[in-house]
Amino acid sequence: MALPTSVKLFEMAPRDGLQNEPGDPVPTATKIELIERLANAGIGHIEAASFVSPKWVPQMGDAAEVMRGLTREPSVVYSALTPNLKGLENALAVGVEEVAVFGAASEAFSQKNINCSIAESLARFEPVLKRAQEAGVRVRGYVSCVLGCPYEGDIVPSQVANVAKALYDMGCYEISLGDTIGVGTPLAAKRMIEATRQYVPIEHLAAHFHDTYGMALANLYAVLEEGVSVIDAATAGLGGCPYAKGASGNVATEDVLYLLAGLGIDTGINLQAIIDTGYWITGELGRKPSSKVALAKGRVSS
Amino acid sequence: MALPTSVKLFEMAPRDGLQNEPGDPVPTATKIELIERLANAGIGHIEAASFVSPKWVPQMGDAAEVMRGLTREPSVVYSALTPNLKGLENALAVGVEEVAVFGAASEAFSQKNINCSIAESLARFEPVLKRAQEAGVRVRGYVSCVLGCPYEGDIVPSQVANVAKALYDMGCYEISLGDTIGVGTPLAAKRMIEATRQYVPIEHLAAHFHDTYGMALANLYAVLEEGVSVIDAATAGLGGCPYAKGASGNVATEDVLYLLAGLGIDTGINLQAIIDTGYWITGELGRKPSSKVALAKGRVSS
Repeated sequence: MALPTSVKLFEMAPRDGLQNEPGDPVPTATKIELIERLANAGIGHIEAASFVSPKWVPQMGDAAEVMRGLTREPSVVYSALTPNLKGLENALAVGVEEVAVFGAASEAFSQKNINCSIAESLARFEPVLKRAQEAGVRVRGYVSCVLGCPYEGDIVPSQVANVAKALYDMGCYEISLGDTIGVGTPLAAKRMIEATRQYVPIEHLAAHFHDTYGMALANLYAVLEEGVSVIDAATAGLGGCPYAKGASGNVATEDVLYLLAGLGIDTGINLQAIIDTGYWITGELGRKPSSKVALAKGRVSS
Repeated sequence: MALPTSVKLFEMAPRDGLQNEPGDPVPTATKIELIERLANAGIGHIEAASFVSPKWVPQMGDAAEVMRGLTREPSVVYSALTPNLKGLENALAVGVEEVAVFGAASEAFSQKNINCSIAESLARFEPVLKRAQEAGVRVRGYVSCVLGCPYEGDIVPSQVANVAKALYDMGCYEISLGDTIGVGTPLAAKRMIEATRQYVPIEHLAAHFHDTYGMALANLYAVLEEGVSVIDAATAGLGGCPYAKGASGNVATEDVLYLLAGLGIDTGINLQAIIDTGYWITGELGRKPSSKVALAKGRVSS
């Protein structure tokens, strides 16, 4: 199959990247600077915050302050996770222009992660979708554990397809398919996409792969061959899943950009600016980027 | 295209993995234990030593002692790098049953790495091939810099194909195509294989990819789709190239085995035993394995 000619990169570092950061909350000013640096590097879609209870995710407790403090580029979409109606109202109050809901392809993971069944989670999203539509705000849908679950093991592709279909039919404009624990391999990733595209057009599917087992880029190449043209990634490979054992970070934006450039696929993003941003934010967090491209190329500016 | 049903994994840790190790030479007994552990884990092809001048590669100065000290499994092939006739004679004297010569697809790299042009290097290999044939010993041919050179940048696929053809026509039974500095991406890897298979049957081509930019597994998946069925890898991702700036280690055997298992491709190798061996050898070297699969799964025994 033909590779896409361009790819939309959805940047996850400020939300999926930071939400699990241990220790004191990252300062609001640092989060804002991160988001602004990412936008300046040419990233057009940034998940900037999560309007979830700070009891559950203390790192995201300043979501409203982050969204209010941000100098927004008109060409950039700043989205936020809104697990329920209260979160959505809080997000709308600070002018969030795109939101996201978060479901799972695994019953056990749904119970552990959001304390309800898959069906219950979908029912909870309905009023969120309805209210978002009234407000003229687009909703993205996440499906987690699409290539494996820490509690259930393998997940059959039809299960992923069913949850993706439900979210799409409910009105989500894009479905992001998450290999939350990074256990997938390329043929499994292809089969999962093949099953899901039966219900959701391929241009509305995004690949959200974690690199726990080092497979993320191989899996991305495999789903690019299927025609997937939206990729979630986090600068410096930040992130992980707080409720999934052994789930390390998102695939690094730097590595995805290097792969895409080698494939002749356009993103409009400045790789070196992302590398520099990755060195800066991981410096703030007291470590090095989890990106082989960043380590191989090195930083140019601070 | 169809993926191969089985893959021959050629283990590089004792030679390509250790040759560049800084500091004091790794003790001969440690090298021998490494090779024996790899064989016990089910690896059938191990590059065990390099019969090169210890002036150039001090870490390989005990090649003869390693080969003599080894308890050999009858089902395992233990090969050695022999850059010239003197190296070959030394290897034959200790009963090496397979040897390898090392050429480059880049003129500049050939000059810097082995101090001669590509044509001169090929001419030097001719007496090695002739003597090996007399001795009934198979010869493997390496081509380095097949996806990029630290001095020349991009390498055209036809240049790789020409060098591979010369080595194959000279009598090398298998041509291992090395992305020495790990800069390649999947389409470039595919094109390089497509050019080379015009002259060398696909079953005689091996992929030898380094993971400097994190692309090795994606590139391997791409060439598996081309039908390549021999993969070079080093347990714990050991290694690198002493004369190529920024060239980090080989792709980790652990990660390759995980990828292949996910693709349903048989190798007959015990992944957990390789993970444990990787933890053991990197412990001896004072670090952790460079393998995400090893880090995610953890060791079981010492």
